Amino acid sequence: MNARQVYFVSDHTGVTAEVLGHSLLARFGDVPVRTTTRPFVNTLERADALAAELSGVPDRPVVFSTITDIGVRERIAAAPCVHLDLFEPFLGALEEVLGASPQARVGAYHGIQDLASYQARIDSVEFALSTDDGSNVRRYGQAEVVMVGVSRVGKSPTCLYLALQYGVRAANYPLAEDDFERDALPEALSPFEGRLFGLTIASRRLHELRQQRRPGSRYAELRRCEYEVRQAERLFRLHGIPFQDASSLSVEELAALVLQRAGLERHR
Amino acid sequence: MNARQVYFVSDHTGVTAEVLGHSLLARFGDVPVRTTTRPFVNTLERADALAAELSGVPDRPVVFSTITDIGVRERIAAAPCVHLDLFEPFLGALEEVLGASPQARVGAYHGIQDLASYQARIDSVEFALSTDDGSNVRRYGQAEVVMVGVSRVGKSPTCLYLALQYGVRAANYPLAEDDFERDALPEALSPFEGRLFGLTIASRRLHELRQQRRPGSRYAELRRCEYEVRQAERLFRLHGIPFQDASSLSVEELAALVLQRAGLERHR
Repeated sequence: MNARQVYFVSDHTGVTAEVLGHSLLARFGDVPVRTTTRPFVNTLERADALAAELSGVPDRPVVFSTITDIGVRERIAAAPCVHLDLFEPFLGALEEVLGASPQARVGAYHGIQDLASYQARIDSVEFALSTDDGSNVRRYGQAEVVMVGVSRVGKSPTCLYLALQYGVRAANYPLAEDDFERDALPEALSPFEGRLFGLTIASRRLHELRQQRRPGSRYAELRRCEYEVRQAERLFRLHGIPFQDASSLSVEELAALVLQRAGLERHR
Repeated sequence: MNARQVYFVSDHTGVTAEVLGHSLLARFGDVPVRTTTRPFVNTLERADALAAELSGVPDRPVVFSTITDIGVRERIAAAPCVHLDLFEPFLGALEEVLGASPQARVGAYHGIQDLASYQARIDSVEFALSTDDGSNVRRYGQAEVVMVGVSRVGKSPTCLYLALQYGVRAANYPLAEDDFERDALPEALSPFEGRLFGLTIASRRLHELRQQRRPGSRYAELRRCEYEVRQAERLFRLHGIPFQDASSLSVEELAALVLQRAGLERHR
């Protein structure tokens, strides 16, 4: 069976079309598809060029679109494709309930709507970078959450996702040999105990991840991983630190769980 | 006017509901709203608790939902709210064109569908971290793109977004005083000339950004910023490096433009 060709078309970044389009396709997980994103289709010329491309695709391609300009949208809708306009079904109901007409604001959500709030989001990325892996602990007072856990448990990607997607200031600090031998939290963390959130992981999965980084090392040994995970969880329990098993969770899932369980506000 | 209460409800992370919901609300930019995300509403009990909460909201709240379980969805739909199911309008057309029935796969897109491809995305985050700001140049051979530009132009957040959202391996290297005095690209970059992508910025904006970081420093002086921007753009032109003005663009916009202009493949 040939893979069906799927386009995500937007007059802006294409992120919204990709996210909803992929989520919908995931519901049909066994059907083979090939996906292509066409961002910035924001002139009639670009719409016509895309329509010409679509007419060259053998099977009618599926087009998920988020286009605000009426003229551009009409050209795509008229092209030989199955056109799914991701905005259209909801605008009428929103118009009624909000008591206002939709405006043709191209890409307002994924652009810079408000410079101060965008800058705060970028500052939180810079914060996550500068406080990664135990760096610059003197800045931890500004953190909304401090993720703790053993090396390779997934702290850094989770903090970066929290910053980029939600503008949340998240620092992270590794638990290591010293801490386990002392059987105590790192002293540097004691001023921030109320803001700590732990990540843990299945020992075998940790072993695999560390094997990829340093094959055959003591660091990667299964017994070493078992010891560290056990000790880390012991410290979480001892200090009443909420913690989450990250073994089979994506960064999107971890971020949503951390926000929910730590009661943090999304800044976006 | 009271802000209308808007909920993003999902049986999984809520990312899809947030992204399309915010994009739709942006079309009604002047209407005040207060948004709340309720992720992991994946049992009838949680659905009932949310329905009870919704019935306590004075004005009928707007609910954007992405829920695959029929029972949970029905409870939310029956609650006193304006319920916009973000999946429903598209499933029929997709069922027809794909020749398959939609499955109730909860949160398949923002979870780990395929461990190898998820791991590749996380590896690209680790790559961006380890090659940030000119570090570990020996790893640049693995980069799909190497972003170059002056300090504070926005290289790091763009690379991290490319990694997290698209699984693209992006390194970044700062252009600095030495390079401008020599009027040449850093030698370390010469093996990667075909993969370089420049970022530039309005001098005044750069001056503001640097003032926030180091107020009153020589680094932040407007004349210094003007000089660096001029010299960086000169180097981009001299070496035929594609470049983009980042002054008023978000990371989402920069990432989409870099992917498009550098002809890079999205790995997701």
